Amino acid sequence: MSTGLIGLDWGSTHLRAYRYDGEGRVLEKRALGHGVRQLPAGGFAEAFAQAVADWPAAPVIACGMVGSRNGWHEVPYLDTPSHVDRLANALTAMTTTDGRAVHIVPGLRDPSRPDVMRGEETQVAGVAALLPEVARRGCLLLPGTHSKWVSLRDGAVTGFATVMTGELYGLLTQHSVLGAQLPPAIDDAQAFLRGVDTARDSGAAGALSCVFLARTLMLDGALPASSVADFLSGLLIGDELRIALASGWANAHDSVHMVGEGPLCDRYLRAAERFGVVLRTTPDTTTSHGLWRIATAAGLVSTQATA
Amino acid sequence: MSTGLIGLDWGSTHLRAYRYDGEGRVLEKRALGHGVRQLPAGGFAEAFAQAVADWPAAPVIACGMVGSRNGWHEVPYLDTPSHVDRLANALTAMTTTDGRAVHIVPGLRDPSRPDVMRGEETQVAGVAALLPEVARRGCLLLPGTHSKWVSLRDGAVTGFATVMTGELYGLLTQHSVLGAQLPPAIDDAQAFLRGVDTARDSGAAGALSCVFLARTLMLDGALPASSVADFLSGLLIGDELRIALASGWANAHDSVHMVGEGPLCDRYLRAAERFGVVLRTTPDTTTSHGLWRIATAAGLVSTQATA
Repeated sequence: MSTGLIGLDWGSTHLRAYRYDGEGRVLEKRALGHGVRQLPAGGFAEAFAQAVADWPAAPVIACGMVGSRNGWHEVPYLDTPSHVDRLANALTAMTTTDGRAVHIVPGLRDPSRPDVMRGEETQVAGVAALLPEVARRGCLLLPGTHSKWVSLRDGAVTGFATVMTGELYGLLTQHSVLGAQLPPAIDDAQAFLRGVDTARDSGAAGALSCVFLARTLMLDGALPASSVADFLSGLLIGDELRIALASGWANAHDSVHMVGEGPLCDRYLRAAERFGVVLRTTPDTTTSHGLWRIATAAGLVSTQATA
Repeated sequence: MSTGLIGLDWGSTHLRAYRYDGEGRVLEKRALGHGVRQLPAGGFAEAFAQAVADWPAAPVIACGMVGSRNGWHEVPYLDTPSHVDRLANALTAMTTTDGRAVHIVPGLRDPSRPDVMRGEETQVAGVAALLPEVARRGCLLLPGTHSKWVSLRDGAVTGFATVMTGELYGLLTQHSVLGAQLPPAIDDAQAFLRGVDTARDSGAAGALSCVFLARTLMLDGALPASSVADFLSGLLIGDELRIALASGWANAHDSVHMVGEGPLCDRYLRAAERFGVVLRTTPDTTTSHGLWRIATAAGLVSTQATA
């Protein structure tokens, strides 16, 4: 089948390539370890060549850290509030050494904090395409190393904020006294919920007022060493939800749409229940949907290919 | 002059030894790097031998992590509320291989959280000896890797809590994306206060809701890379103060007594001003005072030596 578009989701640690037909169906996808911080010898050009090897020539669109200061080509942020359709008008084209054009999606910047994202704006565009009612009025949660909470109104991203939940979890379990000399983590659902409830019940003080519990509960014999990591996971995910409610990013009346699938999202679902927050899930294909939507809005997909 | 007591302040990373006369004056002090986690070949016995080398035989008292599970000899915690005088009744004596008795001060445990301390209880005893009015009714702050907030009432420690401010600062500046590839930190007082104010103004959400600012302000050109560490220092110290107020460990009406001196305490003084909290400082000799006070209350100091 003819190739209408090639899309790249190119972050710090991953490079995913999608080959679409002329109607937005993904014909083939590839996952490479060549993130912006993990490039092969030969750099961006070589990583790109590997990602699209043997694929027919087609327009190329890319999102993520590839457009950052340390990326292949720096692309300025779009400031919020910004309608998701503006992303298509703000693509920056660069030309590879062998003459191919790569169109890079700009990141978004919320000047009120300030805060920034690169890659998630394309997921947001994908959600907006899939769920128009959420684009009209919605709150999105994109969990991860740096979780994002995004507000949508009438098709525009009105603002967003980052919580470094995943990175903090890594720091505390791998580098702090709390994680030192622990046996391998088991998946202790009870310890996880204990952490969630501890964050919830910490009120305005928040999780940093009680994170030392991960150690003292263990010393007390009240938390097995192999459950400390789950307790910390619950404490930090719980604190993210506590923060979202305290900051007004979310409220207990409206549902929140969580983007993604898998074990991490399952943790957020279990934690949200303890807060009475309704999390709805969207499929994990939002980036490939978003790349397609932005490319078509920009007129990148040739009518020949769609024929 | 005759030696009435030898005191050891033996923590995770330091070993300080004090030689007192018979009236509590420190005649000589030594600082060694042989903390409980940094022992020389020969272990505790060798570290002890180096610490007291050439000193006359005298009763020995020790406090700190030396009494922990990974210490020389584990000593159970005393539960709060506990009068500071009870520490003297709860010393545990161990005998070294060459027949010397070492009397180890118990740590304190606050069962209401739970929380624990080892070493700080001796500083608290020192403050109580130096400042009786604080012992009657006071709030102590002991800044450090694991800051402690301690409540005193009628000579008793009624409760306490730990905030891992110093350790978090180390994690974020040394291991996180926020501290990656930064030039050496300068002492930027303005960036520090900006961090303090950011924590204060974060309200119930707290510093974890805005710690990513350390990166976005830099990307925005609003914070020099060499000032990111000072911003983070202010954010975390400010958040500790915010937490102390939100948790009721401190209130804006009563003054807080901060134990210690030096650059870190100066940072707390500057931060507290932004919260309208009055911090009073105590000299940095509280541990040696506390060791002496506990040893005399326990009858360890021989009358011969005091003669």
